[in-house]
Amino acid sequence: MVEGLDDRERLAWLRLYRSEGVGSQTFRHLLQSFGSAAAALDALPELARRSGRERPLRVCPVAAAERELAGLARLGGRLIAEADPSYPPLLAAAEGAPPLLSALGDPGLLGRRAIALVGARNASANGRLLTETMARELGRLGWVVVSGLARGIDAAAHRGALETGTVAVLAGGIDQPYPPETEPLYREIGRGGLLLAEMGLGCVPQARHFPRRNRIVAGLALGTVVVEAATRSGSLITARLAGEQGREVMAVPGSPLDPRCRGANQLIRQGATLVESAADVDELLAGIAAPSADDYMFKNNGVSEIPNFASQPAETAPRSPAEARLEVERCLGPSPVPVDELLRQCQLSPPFLRMTLLELELAGRLQWHPGNRVSLLAAGMRTPE
Amino acid sequence: MVEGLDDRERLAWLRLYRSEGVGSQTFRHLLQSFGSAAAALDALPELARRSGRERPLRVCPVAAAERELAGLARLGGRLIAEADPSYPPLLAAAEGAPPLLSALGDPGLLGRRAIALVGARNASANGRLLTETMARELGRLGWVVVSGLARGIDAAAHRGALETGTVAVLAGGIDQPYPPETEPLYREIGRGGLLLAEMGLGCVPQARHFPRRNRIVAGLALGTVVVEAATRSGSLITARLAGEQGREVMAVPGSPLDPRCRGANQLIRQGATLVESAADVDELLAGIAAPSADDYMFKNNGVSEIPNFASQPAETAPRSPAEARLEVERCLGPSPVPVDELLRQCQLSPPFLRMTLLELELAGRLQWHPGNRVSLLAAGMRTPE
Repeated sequence: MVEGLDDRERLAWLRLYRSEGVGSQTFRHLLQSFGSAAAALDALPELARRSGRERPLRVCPVAAAERELAGLARLGGRLIAEADPSYPPLLAAAEGAPPLLSALGDPGLLGRRAIALVGARNASANGRLLTETMARELGRLGWVVVSGLARGIDAAAHRGALETGTVAVLAGGIDQPYPPETEPLYREIGRGGLLLAEMGLGCVPQARHFPRRNRIVAGLALGTVVVEAATRSGSLITARLAGEQGREVMAVPGSPLDPRCRGANQLIRQGATLVESAADVDELLAGIAAPSADDYMFKNNGVSEIPNFASQPAETAPRSPAEARLEVERCLGPSPVPVDELLRQCQLSPPFLRMTLLELELAGRLQWHPGNRVSLLAAGMRTPE
Repeated sequence: MVEGLDDRERLAWLRLYRSEGVGSQTFRHLLQSFGSAAAALDALPELARRSGRERPLRVCPVAAAERELAGLARLGGRLIAEADPSYPPLLAAAEGAPPLLSALGDPGLLGRRAIALVGARNASANGRLLTETMARELGRLGWVVVSGLARGIDAAAHRGALETGTVAVLAGGIDQPYPPETEPLYREIGRGGLLLAEMGLGCVPQARHFPRRNRIVAGLALGTVVVEAATRSGSLITARLAGEQGREVMAVPGSPLDPRCRGANQLIRQGATLVESAADVDELLAGIAAPSADDYMFKNNGVSEIPNFASQPAETAPRSPAEARLEVERCLGPSPVPVDELLRQCQLSPPFLRMTLLELELAGRLQWHPGNRVSLLAAGMRTPE
């Protein structure tokens, strides 16, 4: 079991993750390269300067991070870092999992087997009834029910599992129930269940936060059940993310005459398992053992490791660092290229290439792909993390 | 193209098929063994006598067959034999297809691509609406809609396709609409569509006739769509038969809260394709070419041919026919055994074994299995054809 962070490193994690340009992937690459968040924070300004950013990168000040920790403590909440034993192991194994989560309520729920139940906000009365019943029965069968605290299906899922254990993932900060009408349910979950948020305290949820919320919902669960989802809905995104992580994707069918069921029916046509009840879900997942923290912890988050290139030759022709950097950019394009190949073609020292890639990443210009491959993002495609 | 039957042989087909103990399979074995129905009729009494039946087999009298043909003609109908060019080629390729069908209406519909639409008798208003719409649109897309003239989904399917072409398969005789309330629809189909029946004129449908009707419905169509079927319903049998024939099995999903949808949902879980509209069905089957009569005609009805054993050695030790027959029965049991193996072990002349198997078949004691294998039916399991 990995030991948790000490207070100083925890504060450094929070500062690093709240710094401009540092998403979950870049965070991990920085940690890999510098050994600790504190060391990465020290190196950040210089790395950013070299990356060709137009203006300096804003590093999260100590005071802001301390304010967030204090505010969280006042609410009765805490920060859960990926290096903590209580970080949910299944989520740790999911691509793009946040290295830090704010948590309010009972973190013990993160150690149990979880199912995500998601669906339409404008759900039918039957859809809500079915969801609440399914959540209640899943709870009795020992499952924790995860959802996104939206209106409709999400709310029904949480409500059905309030007594047995439910986890709500918020799109904004942990103190920002959204939409406002979910506040009473939010309070109940804070008392009897668990609230989770990736964003900082006070962050009002914006459109781009919802897919990230959905990714966490899918990542926490062994499987995702979609009830009453229209085509092109957020629930289908959650289902797709679950499928991409190798989790079970399930859907409750409905009449083709109801547009609210088309998305769920479409999922089934695309290969999702049709489920009608908690028993169906339980039976389907019975063979999957509860994940053990030791299996996952801090081993694999779908993040490509920047290789150490230990056995590779050093550069042969000396160049200025600026020339070498340009050479790397020239070798990169919109098609993913293996890092090994880059190293061979650019004839650079491995540590130098490693830092150059980190710089491009911090500038939001580099994308990592499976199999240790990288590509350059076109100017219009850059991620404003 | 196979030429149709002459009047004398057509009458012989009808007499043979209406004779006691002659089901569709035995009919074909007799035709294979004797070359014509007329010759098989001549041999029937002696074969039956040797088969060990307790009482003599009732052969259909000439007068009864002539009466049926005249009655059918009075209704405006006709007999379609498997040897006729108008016999539907897809049905000819289906296991257990009837060698003879009574037809009333437009036999031209049998030459077009067909879809079966079947489902619950106690269908919901939505289910009927959906079915009628789907049938109408399938009709516009060029499909003939086949169903079983039951209440509910079947009736809605016929109604939706009345203008474009629909085929209703009756469980009893072609003059026996069932249930009585379907009579107006039955008349409309007789005028604008096509009615088909395997049973003789005047035959009131009994429970055992419905699975046979379902087999014909499935056999006529490239695929079967199930709408609103409860678990353990006749529609699921039709779907199973369609699947066994290698036809496409499709189902329209519905809410798990409606018991009428459970069977259709169950089918999807078991691998049926989820369809929501005529367009879905059409798209799924677009790649399947319309069957050509030449591809199927009289080549394969899933009936095992009794092999000719031409290259096998004749018997070595002479025995009395009765002893030899007992020897065959001793070699047979409830587990299927290849006919070749039987021939090798019993050391009989091939023609003798062939006749012995026919006799057992006529006595309802023999069952054929795929791969030219046969088994003996236990006394309680005998088929009362």
